[in-house]
Order: sequence, then C-alpha cells, then structure tokens
Amino acid sequence: MAEPSANPAPPPADPPAEAPAAEGAAEGAGEGTVSKKAAKKAEAKAKKEAEKARRAAEQAAAQASRSAAQAEDLAKDNYGQETHETKLSADAVAIHLKTLGDEHVGKTVVLRAWIQNARMQGAKMAFVELREEGNWAIQGIVAASAEGTPVSRQMVKWVGAINPESFVVVEATVAKPLEPVKSCRVTNYELHITKCFVHAAAPNVLGMTLAAANRPVANFSDEEVPVEEGVEKLSIAAAGETTGTPAATMLTHLDNIVMHKRSAVQQAIADIRAEMKELYRSYLRSHGFKEFEPPCLIAAASEGGANVFRLPYFEKDAYLAQSPQFYKQIEIAGGRKRVFSIGPVFRAENSNTPRHMTEFTGLDMEMEINEDYREVLYMLEGVLLHIFRNIKERCAEEIALVRTVYPSEEFLLPENDKEVRLTFAEGQKLLREEGPEEFRNVSDDEDMSTPQEKALGALVRKKYGTDFYVLDKFPETARPHQPKVTNAYDLFMRGQEICSGGQRINDPVELEKRIRTKGVDPASPGIKEQAGVPAHGGGGIGLDRVVAWYLNLPSVHLAAYYPRTPKRLLP
Amino acid sequence: MAEPSANPAPPPADPPAEAPAAEGAAEGAGEGTVSKKAAKKAEAKAKKEAEKARRAAEQAAAQASRSAAQAEDLAKDNYGQETHETKLSADAVAIHLKTLGDEHVGKTVVLRAWIQNARMQGAKMAFVELREEGNWAIQGIVAASAEGTPVSRQMVKWVGAINPESFVVVEATVAKPLEPVKSCRVTNYELHITKCFVHAAAPNVLGMTLAAANRPVANFSDEEVPVEEGVEKLSIAAAGETTGTPAATMLTHLDNIVMHKRSAVQQAIADIRAEMKELYRSYLRSHGFKEFEPPCLIAAASEGGANVFRLPYFEKDAYLAQSPQFYKQIEIAGGRKRVFSIGPVFRAENSNTPRHMTEFTGLDMEMEINEDYREVLYMLEGVLLHIFRNIKERCAEEIALVRTVYPSEEFLLPENDKEVRLTFAEGQKLLREEGPEEFRNVSDDEDMSTPQEKALGALVRKKYGTDFYVLDKFPETARPHQPKVTNAYDLFMRGQEICSGGQRINDPVELEKRIRTKGVDPASPGIKEQAGVPAHGGGGIGLDRVVAWYLNLPSVHLAAYYPRTPKRLLP
Repeated sequence: MAEPSANPAPPPADPPAEAPAAEGAAEGAGEGTVSKKAAKKAEAKAKKEAEKARRAAEQAAAQASRSAAQAEDLAKDNYGQETHETKLSADAVAIHLKTLGDEHVGKTVVLRAWIQNARMQGAKMAFVELREEGNWAIQGIVAASAEGTPVSRQMVKWVGAINPESFVVVEATVAKPLEPVKSCRVTNYELHITKCFVHAAAPNVLGMTLAAANRPVANFSDEEVPVEEGVEKLSIAAAGETTGTPAATMLTHLDNIVMHKRSAVQQAIADIRAEMKELYRSYLRSHGFKEFEPPCLIAAASEGGANVFRLPYFEKDAYLAQSPQFYKQIEIAGGRKRVFSIGPVFRAENSNTPRHMTEFTGLDMEMEINEDYREVLYMLEGVLLHIFRNIKERCAEEIALVRTVYPSEEFLLPENDKEVRLTFAEGQKLLREEGPEEFRNVSDDEDMSTPQEKALGALVRKKYGTDFYVLDKFPETARPHQPKVTNAYDLFMRGQEICSGGQRINDPVELEKRIRTKGVDPASPGIKEQAGVPAHGGGGIGLDRVVAWYLNLPSVHLAAYYPRTPKRLLP
Repeated sequence: MAEPSANPAPPPADPPAEAPAAEGAAEGAGEGTVSKKAAKKAEAKAKKEAEKARRAAEQAAAQASRSAAQAEDLAKDNYGQETHETKLSADAVAIHLKTLGDEHVGKTVVLRAWIQNARMQGAKMAFVELREEGNWAIQGIVAASAEGTPVSRQMVKWVGAINPESFVVVEATVAKPLEPVKSCRVTNYELHITKCFVHAAAPNVLGMTLAAANRPVANFSDEEVPVEEGVEKLSIAAAGETTGTPAATMLTHLDNIVMHKRSAVQQAIADIRAEMKELYRSYLRSHGFKEFEPPCLIAAASEGGANVFRLPYFEKDAYLAQSPQFYKQIEIAGGRKRVFSIGPVFRAENSNTPRHMTEFTGLDMEMEINEDYREVLYMLEGVLLHIFRNIKERCAEEIALVRTVYPSEEFLLPENDKEVRLTFAEGQKLLREEGPEEFRNVSDDEDMSTPQEKALGALVRKKYGTDFYVLDKFPETARPHQPKVTNAYDLFMRGQEICSGGQRINDPVELEKRIRTKGVDPASPGIKEQAGVPAHGGGGIGLDRVVAWYLNLPSVHLAAYYPRTPKRLLP
C-alpha cells in the first residue's frame, strides 16, 4: 500500500501549529525589588498568561482533532510518492496527448507527465498543467469530493503544492471543458484527476524555469558577461522568481541543460534536426549511395596540421579527424560508386563565436563522376533542396513554433528547374553592378569575403527569390591542390556558405605534381597513390549550420545537442 | 583529338626492332700475321657479313614499313589514355551490369569499369574482364577487324596489356556469348569492345592482387608474424605473383586498403553492415525513437577513468567518450521519450585481439519505462530480431558471398513468440545440469566467464534452436550503481554478449546513496541531480560485433571500415 502522508515528495508545508504564546514570561527577571504595583501587574500578567495557556490548549486540541481527521483521509491511497505498491485502476488506459480524442471522453485514463504548473483555487480545488512532450500539455483538475474520496481536501492541497517539473502519474477521467482551455495546447479536453502520484520529484528551486527556457536566449557569450545592452545575466534564482520571465543567457541554459531541453522550442529544433538528417540520408540512399563510417582517430593531421586536436595514443600520437574527405576518397578508390557519412568532425580552433564549435556533425558525400563534375554539384543541390522542400511539410508545426521564439522570414526556394547557379565571375559581376557601393570594384581573382557573400545572398534573394543558391568554381587561393579555376563550388543559405566541395584530382601523376607545388611531400602518410581511381567529387555539409541557418537561429549552438566550444565541454 | 600512341598508359612494350647483326666484325683484330688460309677465311667471312648486312637492311626496311603501317593505325582514335578530347559515340548509352538485359543486345553501350584481368588470344584477339562493382564483372572481347578499324591489331595488343585494376571506359556492342561465360558473374552477355580508354592506370605491380584480397585473411596479428601454422606473411610482390593465390595477412590487407575494399567479400560485408544500421534506425524510428548525437569530446572520464583517451583541450583536458549513456539519460531527463544514437565510441584499451578495437560504432538507445524494465528489454530484443530477420532477405546474396570466403552456419532465430529469455539463475542452472563437466558447480553469485557464456550459447542452440537469446538480470558485481539483483540484461549472439543494458536509477536520493557506496563523489561533473526524471532504461550494441558475429567472421576488424587498434591508425 502507498503511504502518501508518510513521506510525500515534495511535502507541502503544513501551516506550523501555533505554539503556546510565552512572550514576556521572563520579563522583569533579574529585578531585585517587588512593589505593590508590580505585584498587581504580575497578577494581571499571570491571568493573561493563564488565559493564553487555555487558548493554546484549545488550539492544540483542535489541531489534534484536525490531525485525526487527516489520519482518516479517505483518499490517502490516491496520492503521494509512487512506490512499488502504487496501484492504478485495472481498467485505466494509458493515453498520449497527441492522440487524445472524443473516444476517450468519460473514460478512466492514465497519463505520465510533468507538472508544469500547479495552483490552488480555494481549499477544495487545484489546477495543474500536465506536459507530456514538447508543448503538449493538458489541464488537470483536482476537486475534493463531498464524501472525501476519491479526492480529499488533503489530496487537493498536496497536489496543488507539487513542485513544477516533477514527473507524475495521474489517473483521471477525460472530460470536455465548458470553454476551450487557453493555457494548454490541448484545448478541448481536460482531465478530472482521481489519483496522482509523484514518480520523481523536482527540487524546490529550479536552476531555470521552463518559462525562461522557452524564451529566446539573451546572450551567447561563453564567459560571464557584464550588464550590457539592457540584458542581464540572470542569477539562477532570479530566473525562476522574476515575473514577466526575462530571458536567460546561453550559459544559464547550458548549466541547466535538462530545462533547456525540456523547452518546446529546443524540442522543436531537435525534431527538425533529426528529420533533416533523415531526409539527407534517405535521399542519398535512394540515389544509390552507401553509408559508411570514417574513423575519428587518425594518424596524421589533415589540412596542414593547423587547428587539429592531438592526443597520446599508446606509444604514438593520434589526431581527431577534421574531415572525412580522405576516407571518402578511399571508399571511391576502393570500388564504392557513391558513399556518404554522417558523423562528428573536430576543429581545435579557438573561435568563440555563435558560428563555431569544436565538434560538429558533418554530412559528407562522395561519388564517381562519369562525365562532368556538375553531376556532383547537382546531387548536392538536389539533396539540400530535398531537405528544404520536405522539412517544410514534415515539420511545419515545429518550424512555426521555433518562429514564435526566434522569428525568421520564410526560407525561399527556387521553383523546379529554376535553381540559381552562378559562376564565381557572375557572382562578382552581380556584386559590382548591383551590390553595395563598397563592392563596386571586387575582382575575379580574389576570394569573396563574408560581407561580400552576405551581400550577394541578399542580391540573389531580391533578384531570384531564393535563399538557396550555388556558386560554381573558385579561384585557386580558396582551396588546396587545385588549378587556377577549379571544378569546385560552394552552396549558400541566406548568404552564408553551407557546403563546399569539388572534383578531386584522381590522376596520380597530376596529383603528385600539384601536391609538390604546395610544398607537401606526396609520400606523407595519407597522401599515397591509389590504383586506378575513377574521377570523383563530393562535398561536406555542416548539419548544425543547416539547421541554424534554415531557422535563422542567432547561434549554431542552439541547433546542437551539446555544443562544444573552446570554453565548454559540459555537460 | 586523342593521341593514343603518343603516351598510352600503361604503354605495352613494343618488341624491340631487330638491330642489324654485327657479331664477329671485330673478330681477329689485333692478330699480326695473315696466312692464305686465313685470307680465304676472311673473304668468306666478309661475304657472310655482306649477306648479313643485306638481310639487316631488308629487315630495317620491313621494320620501317611496319612502323609506317603503325603510324597509319586506323583505330588509333579508339583507344589510349582518356583525355578531355576523348570521344564516345553520341548514341552509346551508359549501362550498369546489375541491370543489363536482352534489350541491350545489339546496342552500342558505354561501361566504366576496372580491368580485372586481360589476356591475349593470339595476335588478333584479347579477352578482358570488366568489373563494375562488387563481383559484378562481364567478359569483353577486343578482336582486330579485317579492315583495321574500329579495332586494329595494335589496339588489341594495347588493350591486352593494360595493367589489372586500371579504370577504363569502353564502348562496345552487347552480344550473347555462344556459351555462358563461367569466369564472370554476368554469364549471358559479353561486350564486343570497339573503343577502350584508360581513365586511370594502375601501377605495374599491385601491393595485393584482387584474387588475394578475395581470399580469407590468413592472420590477424597487428605485428609482423613469423611463419606459423603453415601460413606465411606474404611479401607484397609474392601476393601478386604466386599462382594458386595464397591468402594475405590482415597487415597486408590494411596496407593495401584499396585492394582490400575492392574485394567482393569486403563489399558484401560493407553492404550488410550498412543495411543492418539502416534496419536498426528504421525500426526504432517506427517505434517513436528520435535520433540524436551525443558528444565525443567530454569533460570527465566516465566509468572511473580507466581505458579512456585524454587530450589537451585549450587550457584544460578533454576525454573521448567511452559510451553515450550519460547523454542518453540527459535526453530522457530533458523530455525526450525515446532516443537513439549511432556514432563512434572510444576505448583506450591495450587489447590486441580480433575482438577489440579502440574506436567502434555504437548503436545506443534509451527510453522511458512506464511499468516494467522489460519494456526496454523487449525493445532491444525486437530491434535485433528485426535486423536478423530482415538482413537475411535484404542481403541474401551478400551473405552467401561472404560464406564462400568465411564459411558459417546459418544464424538460427527463434520463431515468433518463442524468444528465449533466461534469467541469470536459469542460465547457470542449465550450465550446471547440461553443460560441460567443468561448469557443474557454477554459482548464481558469480558473473559468467567467457567460456561459460560460449557453453551456454551452445546449449541454447541445441535446446531451443536459436543463436540469439536474452539473459535477464545480473548479480551486482557485473555492473556499477545497481543493487544485488538489478533490472539488467545481456543479449547474446552465438554465445557472445552483443548488447548489455538495464534500467537506470532515476531517484536522485537513491542514486546519490549508491554512488557514494562506490566511493564516487556525487557532485563530480556529469553526476548531477536532475529534476523529475521518469524511469528509463536502455542498452548499447556494438555494430562491428553484430556484423562480425552474425557472419561468424574470424575478426571484428573485417566488419569495420577502418579498424583502429593500439598498433594501427592507418589508413
């Protein structure tokens, strides 16, 4: 049997029994002389104290009587801390809020959920909001029954005092409310609670409330920030107690990762991310790509050894892979026609910006080229368009929800067969001719700067009505081991590069020659001649950035599950 | 225009032009006296030499004439090194061997493939085996045309001398062979080649031939091995030149990773692995699981800090995650009902065995428990049965192919609703009562040894006809932070543990108490109280081992794309 009153968690504070008054009892003590006036005063005082004692005795009796009533709580088996003996009705069916329907009305059901809010309405009724997942919450009502069961006044009081974010199991009857419930996502049903057990209690004070977690993040600095631009770094307590729910900093969010993740906005972002990943994978699989796993631990630093994590590995050193490119190329050389990988890549770059992380998820692909490197380019364009077109339908609700917290304009896409593909020279020309004043003289021989890319993105949006486009070919300085004008390309989202790739050199003689011009020894580990390698190309996409920029989030850290930065490895 | 004879790669060695004979010209020089006999002899000799010179002149003329004929090679645009000017017929359609059919017979087609074998049949004909992917190869015939085009004798000779494993593009007519071609997978069609260009040449000597790559690996030691048990470590040259194709060691395979990967057996294993991964993912997705990515870089060593890779991380240290368990649990605490992850996990364990790797792919899952931890156990059992039942159909050909190299008995599965689930006590009882002599006295208080597990696997196979079963509950010593008999379980394949998991402690008070009994500070980073966490459990599966043990491979390294061991980080 459950023993709800033995150790309810969290125990609602009983009003303290009024202690018999004793003030003044020691008054005058230490005085040596007693006058008549003083004796009278003492007598009056004694009377007064006797009266007080009588009243205290009465009160104690009343209290005892109340306690007896409590001991006889007829609903005592219907609430409290859940234990192994907790019993629910045999005919109660488990429900999920997403699928709640008219067929449940009048039925006894079970719901496992978080209490996201609880308030008393007088002594006989309490309202609770029960959240199952994301922002799927329903209103629950606990009303004391006239006969004291299934719900007693004690039970109402106890339920009304459960700490927010405690996980509970409730048994209830599904009912239609008199008018739609505005405070919850489930508006047309409510639960008339008959049993409520706390499965796992939340602490009295949360590091960050759910309301704060659902607000836009105030500041993305990885360090303690001073008061600036009207935004305060919230203290842990302040976040929970301030009315009006000010926003919290990213530091507070990450220090309270569980509450950060329970927010509807973060769950929506996570859902969008997972679906984008699945769309990437299913598109490539349907186009004959095989998934493989490149290693993270590698023997030689790629890309010249800068920004690479190095670690002791038994008797030698290992590095963490900055890109799976070398391994994708081995797969092609090893007879796979088309491959893709989804996995972590690492950059030991001390960049503390909302665009950077030291570990992120790479979506990479590589494929044989039959006749033209644009086969690869169109495949990359195709998979991204597939993601963008389908995510809009699959996650319409989640995208809308994210926009309520982080507003963004619709992500515009080109119509079919109207994809925008600019050559580098065309892009520079557009900038010169229609871009801002400062780009009037940009040269085709220089790489584009970030402001140039952003300006070009704005121009393309205005001119072609798309936030996604391709920039084909790049001058040599942009990429290693490539000739003056290479078969390379970048793909852009909202004016930011989201994917870069190109055709690789597969002729061993040509490759060796070009590697030498870069001052690299072609015999270095990882740069070895391979036998009869077909022409191939590929590209890499950062999943975190695709998610963040599609949703126009203020930081890529919001799109990651556990953002890693030079200053943060926890949680 | 292509210039095939200018720089064909690889250039077949022309027979050296016969040099005019000059032997004996200096004979007798230096002798002081000349007799009559000697003079006669000299005359005869001069005559003979004149005759020789005449013949040499004739031969030179003939040679010149042959050279002229060669210069006039009427097929010269139809073969050679592929260049940007290489032209194929406009009406030639690209084919793939998997989908080649009667509708192609008589048509002009293009195939891009590896030459896996080439041999001359007299001076006017050559046979080549063209491999597109896996073991999908077709026979090609190059026969000199009477009129010298489209195929000349020179072209036949050139094609017949292409180095094996060069990547070529051929234009050909599809024909039905007089009798089925036994040497290739495509038996009922052949290609009558009219053009052949080398896209990327293989070197004259391969580090390992394809035939050797397709044999079972001889030895899995990570170090140079002495001659033992009749198996020699092959020198690179020997592997290619020995007839009868002896097996190569794993060292040779990995040092020649491209040839290792081109082998049909490795491609089949890779296909099976990719499909198993997809089956894992699709099953969990269809059961409401959301994919997420746990971090690899973490701030604290899990599981007590043993066997963990540590690396300098800006001003502090980081560790590589040995398991995503902590992060799976945060996801559940953070409001996700069911999650899974697929990603690398790391073990800095100096174990040089065919069962161990320092980096492998973990398939992990975690879910809320409503009423019973067996909800998790049945889910793990369900996903593995789903993988095993479906892989048999999806990859029947690949499994059969692997068995031709690595023989294995059928992987037996239980019928529906006849899954084998033994408690730990039942397992020990079975061992005591029906197992080998040495296990007559095994105790329920001790963990099972590997030989015990293997013996139990054999017993279960014999008794219940399944290679897959569940062992439910484990004594305390087997797992941290759990009571005497825990809600934990292991899943076995062919008598080897493939997955272990359990219900986690979600009550913060209970968790803290148990952590203290292990001598761990509950306030350590990563072990923090979480607010209102529902009951949950999960498990982890090593993908590499599932693949290896399903196929009964002699080493898990054969199932990995790039096996990482204490001695190997390359390639």
